[in-house]
Amino acid sequence: MRNSGSELVEEGDYVVLFLDERRSWVVRVEASRNFHTHKGIVKLGNLVGKRYGEAVQSNLNQRFWVLKPTTYDHMMNVDRPTQIMYPKDIGILILKLGIGPGKIVVEAGTGSGAAAIAIANALKPDGHLYSYETRIEFLRVAERNLRRAGLLDFVTLRNADAKLGFQEHDVDAVAVDLGEPWEIVPQAYRSLKGGCPLASFSPTINQVERTVLALRENNFIDLQTIECLVRNMRVEKGKTRPTTMMLGHTGYLTFARKILGTSTEAAD
Amino acid sequence: MRNSGSELVEEGDYVVLFLDERRSWVVRVEASRNFHTHKGIVKLGNLVGKRYGEAVQSNLNQRFWVLKPTTYDHMMNVDRPTQIMYPKDIGILILKLGIGPGKIVVEAGTGSGAAAIAIANALKPDGHLYSYETRIEFLRVAERNLRRAGLLDFVTLRNADAKLGFQEHDVDAVAVDLGEPWEIVPQAYRSLKGGCPLASFSPTINQVERTVLALRENNFIDLQTIECLVRNMRVEKGKTRPTTMMLGHTGYLTFARKILGTSTEAAD
Amino acid sequence: MRNSGSELVEEGDYVVLFLDERRSWVVRVEASRNFHTHKGIVKLGNLVGKRYGEAVQSNLNQRFWVLKPTTYDHMMNVDRPTQIMYPKDIGILILKLGIGPGKIVVEAGTGSGAAAIAIANALKPDGHLYSYETRIEFLRVAERNLRRAGLLDFVTLRNADAKLGFQEHDVDAVAVDLGEPWEIVPQAYRSLKGGCPLASFSPTINQVERTVLALRENNFIDLQTIECLVRNMRVEKGKTRPTTMMLGHTGYLTFARKILGTSTEAAD
Amino acid sequence: MRNSGSELVEEGDYVVLFLDERRSWVVRVEASRNFHTHKGIVKLGNLVGKRYGEAVQSNLNQRFWVLKPTTYDHMMNVDRPTQIMYPKDIGILILKLGIGPGKIVVEAGTGSGAAAIAIANALKPDGHLYSYETRIEFLRVAERNLRRAGLLDFVTLRNADAKLGFQEHDVDAVAVDLGEPWEIVPQAYRSLKGGCPLASFSPTINQVERTVLALRENNFIDLQTIECLVRNMRVEKGKTRPTTMMLGHTGYLTFARKILGTSTEAAD
Repeated sequence: MRNSGSELVEEGDYVVLFLDERRSWVVRVEASRNFHTHKGIVKLGNLVGKRYGEAVQSNLNQRFWVLKPTTYDHMMNVDRPTQIMYPKDIGILILKLGIGPGKIVVEAGTGSGAAAIAIANALKPDGHLYSYETRIEFLRVAERNLRRAGLLDFVTLRNADAKLGFQEHDVDAVAVDLGEPWEIVPQAYRSLKGGCPLASFSPTINQVERTVLALRENNFIDLQTIECLVRNMRVEKGKTRPTTMMLGHTGYLTFARKILGTSTEAAD
Repeated sequence: MRNSGSELVEEGDYVVLFLDERRSWVVRVEASRNFHTHKGIVKLGNLVGKRYGEAVQSNLNQRFWVLKPTTYDHMMNVDRPTQIMYPKDIGILILKLGIGPGKIVVEAGTGSGAAAIAIANALKPDGHLYSYETRIEFLRVAERNLRRAGLLDFVTLRNADAKLGFQEHDVDAVAVDLGEPWEIVPQAYRSLKGGCPLASFSPTINQVERTVLALRENNFIDLQTIECLVRNMRVEKGKTRPTTMMLGHTGYLTFARKILGTSTEAAD
Repeated sequence: MRNSGSELVEEGDYVVLFLDERRSWVVRVEASRNFHTHKGIVKLGNLVGKRYGEAVQSNLNQRFWVLKPTTYDHMMNVDRPTQIMYPKDIGILILKLGIGPGKIVVEAGTGSGAAAIAIANALKPDGHLYSYETRIEFLRVAERNLRRAGLLDFVTLRNADAKLGFQEHDVDAVAVDLGEPWEIVPQAYRSLKGGCPLASFSPTINQVERTVLALRENNFIDLQTIECLVRNMRVEKGKTRPTTMMLGHTGYLTFARKILGTSTEAAD
Repeated sequence: MRNSGSELVEEGDYVVLFLDERRSWVVRVEASRNFHTHKGIVKLGNLVGKRYGEAVQSNLNQRFWVLKPTTYDHMMNVDRPTQIMYPKDIGILILKLGIGPGKIVVEAGTGSGAAAIAIANALKPDGHLYSYETRIEFLRVAERNLRRAGLLDFVTLRNADAKLGFQEHDVDAVAVDLGEPWEIVPQAYRSLKGGCPLASFSPTINQVERTVLALRENNFIDLQTIECLVRNMRVEKGKTRPTTMMLGHTGYLTFARKILGTSTEAAD
């Protein structure tokens, strides 16, 4: 069900409080809570009943705009980000993995849950994500981040080592974000349905090389490794230019697909 | 409903026929049809009952792998592509617009429907895309492309000029891919719910500049313009390097959000 | 005359004092002077008689390596850098302008002299650079920077407005680094020899557009505008990757060549 | 000596014949020779006595502009290019190596001589380049290319294997463009003066990693590896944008400097 037209902020909603293009926050509206910024205190109770798109004032008369959070906002607002995949990377990953409503997906390496937020949002309401993470402290962070984004129902977090194998079989896609992705390639193969895709994210080119070799040896085909770069533009009338500093690297994405047969034959 | 584990190719399915990393096709399985390639003829009837991930032979004994199409495959396989947004662009657009199941989205400029495929796949089963296009010939192409991707039920194609306004109100997001995006900014504003996002795609920096100015003058805030570049890597053991040629430019993406108030105040 | 093999540091030499890959300085060896760093004081007198490539100790026993400054070092070590052209930009500019020994070059916009250092080094000993700058304070900085690099003899600094025209005629190349480069295109045309090149550097795309139009209208042909990006790699055994942050933009370089005839004809 | 103002084309000159921005040629003016293009024949004898910047007509009345060749033109016009370093790479290499008039430089891997053209142009009239190449057929090509550029007097081409060591000692800089650059690092060390720089160019990241390790083990410091990308802009009034396709990769450049001491100490 979608929201009605005259949408009002309700207790319990997550909203974006927008100050300017460099400063905004995703906050949960709780009537009794205050949100402290260097531009004054916002009484969150004042937000209840506001229309989305309106503004509230802090006690220092600074105006904050109240916006609807998007998937991007939830991803960029995770607690304790473990670096890693950015929306630029996850956006194309979702399209390459064919993730949509109803899909069953396995993720190896939950981290703080930024990718899980985007994947869960894409496969709800009738798909499911199973996400593996050995470090319990990250799993707790990811759980909190997913709850905030309203997506925890669509994710099962498993405190287990993907190297020991996945419990799920016949899954539609596998996403890997581990330091040694090549070690779980056979496990990913066993979990995937035939003809279905896998994606792996790695910061270094050495990881990429080992992963690609493991994929080729384990009956994956259609291998592609890409790097996705985003450059911000500073747009002003008559003075438009790219920004001076940019994020030059997050990692490489490798994609492949499982076949039922031997890839040595495929390589002929 | 998701597919069962031992998934078999059925009559009417769209499948990827994969020859090698530069040559693959999305084809519809029709028992009576042959698919002609320079590597021989594939009798599509032979695919029925195959498991996804298996191979078929052409009459020249060339093997083709049978894979499940992803959103990416459907997007890259559109008829008569009007250039334009690539998966790299649309992937991040979907996250920035917060598109997910249940969302109501308006698109200005259907083109051949590549973006519509990705958006419709993201908002199904209970969301809907309304897509405007003045050129009837493109609309027909887009209709065919969406049908192939199994997504036509989630899209209403409108042969109408977005400059005259959108029929839809209180929509969750607007995506614009027109030559003169600045001309429909007021219309987009009227259709959007408060606090909700718009994205515009343009090949030239001059279009970007005019669009950004129009957004600022029409009570949009949180403006961001990016360019997304993808570089392919050629991965071989001991010889890994970026590919020599790359797609250096498709277009710029501009994002903004509607406020209920005046952006001149916002600019203070 | 080149230096002999067993090259020793002499009083008055400029040397690089290298601490690590992020921290090094170009300093002039003066027997009576101390060089202060957060890692202790280096008595510059101790450098005299050292061989290049050897190390000296600070009073805190920190070792500094004594290296020969390159053109790059002199350029990156300028006082009060006015941002602007980096070695990546100037390197290709020198090749595109065909600057080498014996060439007569005019520069509009001296700034702090970084480009002048590279150009003067390339055209010495029998060429000459005439560099125009309206802001006297920059001219003084540039003079000091050129003296340090040992190149002041090959440069005439003119505190004059390039818009009023250049005193030099029949020059081999013109380099422009001004805020409004289109305003001096006719002046550059008059100074250049027939068939010879001009380069212009601008941070914004709007400046580029106006400059290109002015060049086309003023009998310049072979126009090319490029952007040059440098990405640093972090190389470690088994962990090699691009660095996270990069300089995403300095400016665009536009190149063109003067013809004796009308470019409207040329455009036919 | 520089040329006088009213510069005229003479027999034996190399000139650029410019048709349009995609089609131009560097040709030697020989009175008895015709130059054949798809736009007709240009009698080169007609060029003698023309002023640079003027045009000549082919027998099909196509106009060609007569321009002065720059270093860039000579580099891009080499016969049988072995791919490899482009002006974007060589421009910054010359600045990082501090190459200027009077310098003695060794190059390992002459190839077709494109880098040698730029280096020789930078170090003339009193410097010298010694360039090593095992493949005699490339050496002949390089010799022809250097002669055309008028630079052969400043280069000694050696048909010898750099792995066996360089004959030159106390050189100011070493440039390496070999498939296995790590193999000649000790030889480069022996040839270089203390405190002086080396540059190595390699297409793959695996080559870079091995080269960097060899440099660190052989008393080189100040290591830096970069990748230089050039993007062309298509500039038209109101329609300015980057070009669609770009050269995405040529190779990585690694820079380092020789110390007289042990780099293990340096690494402390």
